[in-house]
Parts: sequence; structure tokens; C-alpha cells
Amino acid sequence: MNHFSFDDTIVAPATASGIAAIAVIRVSGKEAILLCNQIFKGKDLTRQASHTIHFGTIRDGDQIIDEVLVSIFKAPTSFTKEDVVEISCHGSDFIVKRILQLLLKHGARLAKPGEFTQRAFLNGQFDLTQAEAIADLISSDSEASHQAAIHQMRGGFSQQIKKLREQLIYFASLIELELDFGEEDVEFASRHDLQKLVLNIQSVTKDLIESFQLGNVIKNGVPTVIAGKPNAGKSTLLNVLFNEEKAIVSEIPGTTRDVIEDELMIEGIRFRLIDTAGLRHTTDTIEAIGVERTRQKMKQASLILYLFDSTLIDQESLEEELVDIRKLNLPLILVANKTDQLTKVKSIPSWLNSDEIIMISASEKDNIAALKNRMLAMVHAGQLKTGDTLITNVRHYESLRQTYVALDQVLGSINQNRTGDLLALDIRHALRYLGEITGEITTEDLLDTIFSKFCIGK
Amino acid sequence: MNHFSFDDTIVAPATASGIAAIAVIRVSGKEAILLCNQIFKGKDLTRQASHTIHFGTIRDGDQIIDEVLVSIFKAPTSFTKEDVVEISCHGSDFIVKRILQLLLKHGARLAKPGEFTQRAFLNGQFDLTQAEAIADLISSDSEASHQAAIHQMRGGFSQQIKKLREQLIYFASLIELELDFGEEDVEFASRHDLQKLVLNIQSVTKDLIESFQLGNVIKNGVPTVIAGKPNAGKSTLLNVLFNEEKAIVSEIPGTTRDVIEDELMIEGIRFRLIDTAGLRHTTDTIEAIGVERTRQKMKQASLILYLFDSTLIDQESLEEELVDIRKLNLPLILVANKTDQLTKVKSIPSWLNSDEIIMISASEKDNIAALKNRMLAMVHAGQLKTGDTLITNVRHYESLRQTYVALDQVLGSINQNRTGDLLALDIRHALRYLGEITGEITTEDLLDTIFSKFCIGK
Repeated sequence: MNHFSFDDTIVAPATASGIAAIAVIRVSGKEAILLCNQIFKGKDLTRQASHTIHFGTIRDGDQIIDEVLVSIFKAPTSFTKEDVVEISCHGSDFIVKRILQLLLKHGARLAKPGEFTQRAFLNGQFDLTQAEAIADLISSDSEASHQAAIHQMRGGFSQQIKKLREQLIYFASLIELELDFGEEDVEFASRHDLQKLVLNIQSVTKDLIESFQLGNVIKNGVPTVIAGKPNAGKSTLLNVLFNEEKAIVSEIPGTTRDVIEDELMIEGIRFRLIDTAGLRHTTDTIEAIGVERTRQKMKQASLILYLFDSTLIDQESLEEELVDIRKLNLPLILVANKTDQLTKVKSIPSWLNSDEIIMISASEKDNIAALKNRMLAMVHAGQLKTGDTLITNVRHYESLRQTYVALDQVLGSINQNRTGDLLALDIRHALRYLGEITGEITTEDLLDTIFSKFCIGK
Repeated sequence: MNHFSFDDTIVAPATASGIAAIAVIRVSGKEAILLCNQIFKGKDLTRQASHTIHFGTIRDGDQIIDEVLVSIFKAPTSFTKEDVVEISCHGSDFIVKRILQLLLKHGARLAKPGEFTQRAFLNGQFDLTQAEAIADLISSDSEASHQAAIHQMRGGFSQQIKKLREQLIYFASLIELELDFGEEDVEFASRHDLQKLVLNIQSVTKDLIESFQLGNVIKNGVPTVIAGKPNAGKSTLLNVLFNEEKAIVSEIPGTTRDVIEDELMIEGIRFRLIDTAGLRHTTDTIEAIGVERTRQKMKQASLILYLFDSTLIDQESLEEELVDIRKLNLPLILVANKTDQLTKVKSIPSWLNSDEIIMISASEKDNIAALKNRMLAMVHAGQLKTGDTLITNVRHYESLRQTYVALDQVLGSINQNRTGDLLALDIRHALRYLGEITGEITTEDLLDTIFSKFCIGK
């Protein structure tokens, strides 16, 4: 990785906008310290050690803008590996704006979204998957997505990818060396060893590709429909599920401000409830299934919970109700509600003892844990362990799939005993896709696309 | 001022909520460093110097919550004069919540609003007016209110108040000493010198009381009505006034997110336009004046701009239009619009050359600066200089007024040659009101009222 030197010094607010105790402004670049020193009255910032904090005032001429704490980070021990200054001022948008204006006046430039992270990446602070993980980390709002992002930020699968890629590069160069010998029919690269390596990379790639289903669930949540006739006890179940969650969410007042009503968190996995108005609010629940609009909404689901009143229904009528739902061919959990009332009057009918059915009592809060476990199991999230390597990023997923296909091509060429130049070409293809993942091969377009999704100041 | 020692360690988010590059969590108290050290993996925080920054991870057992920078401030060189740790994590509410939970689990307590500042005040970091200025500073959104808050935060008038109060205390103690001598008719405290001092304090107090009108304007803005018949050119004038301001506001994208349409900033003074629907949107502007609702709204104004078309009206008709407005007895600027058209056809009628009238052309942007200057002058803001001492706080205003009255009482007692014990009592009254301003005399209720208005984390 090259180390880049950027001529301009960039600046941006690093904390969220709004009234707060403090706000932080980040400055990075060759002139960062010098520039801040011009508007700072206190100690001479150019003569301070890295990782130290200094009290003083920010001034525009004689006018005091704020009393601040200034943190100094010297290249290369900063986030961007450039000189970085963080100005911690009072948490007012007005003051942040005034200090930014002042820094711009003294020659800094407003940073583009993600530009600090982009500089850190270009200066070799971390690879591209790690840079992308920072954005994921900031926007993660569930235990599982947070852990996946942390894992990826700290290296995740990219070390493994890099190592395998280096081994493949080694083979590619041996084969290209053979080409230099032209007609001499030498073979520096053992086709057998190459085949073994390619199969190994394919195996790793395959596991990662397969982890994307769970990774996606973790990152984006599980679109879930809870369906059932109105008398089935849907609202009671939703209350039982939600109330517990709300208690957790509101444990610390003031930190999580917008609780989204229609999301359920089960062991860190977010189940996003799809609002199928026809299913949730009208009385003709089942009848509405036929309606195209509702059907379209249900199709977006990754999971359907179908709730029914176990005291009122037999197996035949249930299957009748389910005809249209089964046609959707989606993961389905049948939830037999009110089983507490059932056991009072008669024994549980044997057809309810099915793998597809979970028996609960929403009002008695019976067996809710089993339902939750089943929901987790249905999205393959039951076995999730902290530190598992997961693909959560659709870009990585696509590159891994292309890698896999390209490696198939390499295997084909080996089997068909193709010439070295064709084989080298196939390997180069695979190397490109692998390199794109960790950012060893990038284009300006790709970087722009990735970093423009970051927030300002990151 | 006593130095307080608090047993519990408090914690709160110090930056605004929302997705951002970083968020800061503030921890203060005896155990702050020890407590953070328990959840931090990196250097041993208990062995680091004050004002240094350390990279590491926050961990809940084996689980990594985030990579963070931790800033150490050791008592008494911190904001609260206690040990303080600031944890700078990634700017996600989820991560902030997790770290807060972890700190609470390890024995910290969630801080009440303003509790950090309250501790700083109780530990003698600053006086009460300075503490109050911090809240004003954070919520200030105009140049003038910002400067007034900065000035007050850095001492403002409180040093002067304190000095005068100390001199008065000296006299009070001399007089109380006289009382110890009972019948002996000694006079340690020169009544003449006391009178001189009281008059001096009254003079200072009077200036401060009088500054409150402008201080209030600066802090809360000037409620302003722009009235006039629809053809007078009101919207053109509003556009001219607003467009300029909008350009300034949007200079740095993303920093000031909510531009309030109906506020005008003129040299840092906020003019809040009162929406008198009858005046602004209907065609029966003047007719509506009689309507109670509109009249009530106009009464809230501190300034009325009455716009008229100078090409269409004579002095007599204008005065007719103004009959109801003049009854309101509010500061009034008469704005003669379209004077550019007037000069094309005839000379300017002499009655327009009045001190009460500003001649402009909204469409030609003629003389807008003069109008603005007049608006500033009408609220006594024309002479505002950076660093002027102003009362912006209604609590200070009330205490100063009570001080003034109490000092009148002292003067009366001196003039009437009252006995020392009565005089001492009068002086003690004045001292109490003076002491309340800077917080040398406080009650728990008063402090609670003041600090509960602060934001969490300050």
C-alpha cells in the first residue's frame, strides 16, 4: 500500500448536530496543527507532544469564539496517519459553524463525506473491508449487526483473503515465468499444488458466500409478517413481544430516542414487522390474502408467523386458511395460541404436535421463548457466536461470487491442460476479484461510491 | 467557596445523539479513572498523566464494544475539578448506550442534567453567573447572544459585583462590631463612606438593570411585526431581507440544519417575525387590525414596521391607516416603499422627510441598510460592542432590582440616623440579593432550578 501525501488540510464536524455539552471538530492534514495554532490562544500547539490535550480559546482576531480543549495527534499515530487536531468546543451548532468558518478562512477545506476514512485507507491504516466496517459500525443498531461490524473492523475475514491471494499471486508469477522460457516446456508451477490451492480458496470463498444470508439478516433485519385471524390473539402476542423489548430499550432514558414500534429485537437480531394493513388492521384477514397489494407485501417477507386460535380450529380448516400463504413458499412458523385454555377442556390434539407448530399462550406468556428460538432458527441465526466471520456487505458478496466463478475457470483450465498464458489470465481474473474485496485493487469510482455513503466528519 | 467531594461517579453522553463520526461519553468522580480502567483494554489508565489520550478497546468481558480514544483529566485540572475521563467512541447511539450500560454496571450513576456543571460550580471552578452562561452559550444561535454568553462565561460583571459585595460586607462587619460595644456609642463604620459605597453600588446596579432591555433582545430576539397593505410590497421586502440572510446561513452545508423562515438576523440580533395571519396573508390587512386576535398578536411585538406604497398615499390617508396601530404604543418604523418610482414622476413630498419614516425601494434594494440600522437603533442595539457587559438573565435582573431597592433602604436608614442593628439588617438584605447573583448565597432549590435546565452531559 502506498502512503499518500495530501496537500490540503480538511476539516469537518465529527459529532452529531444539536444542542449538547460538547461538539468535536476534526482537522486533518499537513497544516492541521499550524492552522489550528493560528486561531488558538493558549499553549503553542506546534510544540506539543502527540496525544495531549490543551485548554485555550478559539479567537477570530480579538473576538473569543469559545473556550475549547484541543487534542493533538501527530502523524502517523493518528486515525488518518496525518497530523490531526480535534477541537472540543461547546455543543452548539452556531459555535461549530463559527469555528469551521474560521478554519476555512485560514486555508482548510471542508472534508467530503468519508474523506477522513478514505485518507486513513489510502495511507494504509486499514484495508477496504475495515473502512467499510466503520460505516456499518456507526449505523449498526442491534447487538448482532454491531458485533459483525466490530469483527470486520478488526480484520474479520480480510486477513485470510489476503493470505490466500498472496499464495495465488505466487503461482501466477511462476506461471508467467514459464512463459518467459517460451518453447522450452518448463513447468515451474506445479499444476497439482495450484489445483489444491484453488480448491482451498474456493472452500473458504464458499463458506463466506453462504454466510451472507445470515450476514444480511444481521445487518438489515428480517422482514417478518405476523398474520392470523383477528381472534387469534395477534395483538396480545405483539404486546408480549414488544413490551419486553421496550423495557430493554428504555433502560437508559435519553440515549435511544426513536424507538421504532414495528421492530422486534430477539437476541440481537432485528425482526422488521411488515405492515400489511389488510393483515393487521382489518377483519377480513384471510380474505385479503388474495388481494394483490397484500400479497406483494407478504412477498417481501423473509419469515411468516401464522397465528391461530388452537381452541377453535381443526387441522383441516387451518390448512384451508393456509392455502394462499403456502403458495408464497416462504419460511413459515405456525403458532397455536391459547393452548392454556385448550388443556383446561381437553387434551392437546395430536396434530398440533408438529415440527411446524409452536404452541403458546400469549395471554399467559407461555412458551414465548420457544417461539423466539424458532424465529432465530428459521433465519439460521440460532448458532451465531461472537466473532463469527460473516459477510454482511453486498459488495463483498458479489466479489466473492465472481471470485468463485473465476476459480472454476482456473480449475477447468488446469484439467484441460491449457497453456500457461491462458491459465495465467484466468488466475489474474480471480486475483482481481479477490483484490477488490480488501481494496488492494481499487478504482477511483469504487472508492468514491464507498466513501460517499459515509457521514461528514468520518 | 467550599470544595465538595462527591462519593458517586457520574456518567452521561456529552455529544448530541445521532449517527456521526464520533460520540463522547463523560465520566466524573473519585472512581472515574479506576472505573473506566476496568472496561478498557490498552494502557493502564490509572498510571497515565493528566491531559493525555489513549487508544484501546472497551470490553464487556470478552466482547469488544468499540475501539475508542480515552482522554484523562486529573483532579483538580478538569472541568468538574474531579477526576474526569472522556471516552470518544464511534458515533452510534447503540454503542453509546452499550458503553453507558457497562459503566453503570461497574458502579457509575447516570448524571442528572447539568450535574457536571453543578459539580464544577460547587468545587469553585466558576461562579453561578458563569455556570448559567454555559447553558446560554450552548443554546445561543446568534452572533450577539453568543458574544453575550461568552462574555458572561469569562467573568462578565460578576467580578465587579463580587468586589462591591466584599466592600459592603466589610461595612456590615464594622457596624456589627459597633453593636458588640453596646451602649458605648462608638462608630467604626463611617456613615459617610458607607453612603458613598452604597451610591456607587446603586450606580453599577442601575446600569446593569438598564442593560437588561438590550440583553433580553440579544438573548431572545425582537418580536417584530411587518404590517402594511398587500400592495405595499411586503413580500418583496421580506425576500430582500431573507435572501441575504439565507445565503449566510447556508454558507457551510450541513451545519445549520433548520433554517427558521421567520427569523431575520441583523448584525447578530435576531428579529422574530410574528405571524399575524390577518396581516400577512389576507387582503383586508388594515380592516383586520380591529379584529381582537390580530391585535393581541401585535401586542406581543416589540417593534412594528409599517410598510406603505409611497406613490399611492398622502400623509392624511397614512395617518388614517395608522390610527389603530398607533394606539398600541409600540416602537414603530414607517417604511415608505417604491420611492424609486416616486422620483421618476415627481419630487419627493416633504412630509416623507420625517424622522419616523425610512424611504426604501424593496424591488431596487435601495436603502435596505438604512432600514436595518433603524431596526437595530429602535431596540437600542445600535451601539452594541463586543465585550459589553449586559444582563441577559431574568434571574440576575430580578436580584439586581431587589438589590437596588434594598440599597435604597440602607440609604434611608443612614439619612434617618437609624441604630446600627437596623442598618446592619438592611445591609444584610442587600448582601443577600447581591450574593444570589454570583451564587455566593444559594439554596438547593435555586441550584436545582438552574441546573435542571441544562442538557444531559453538561
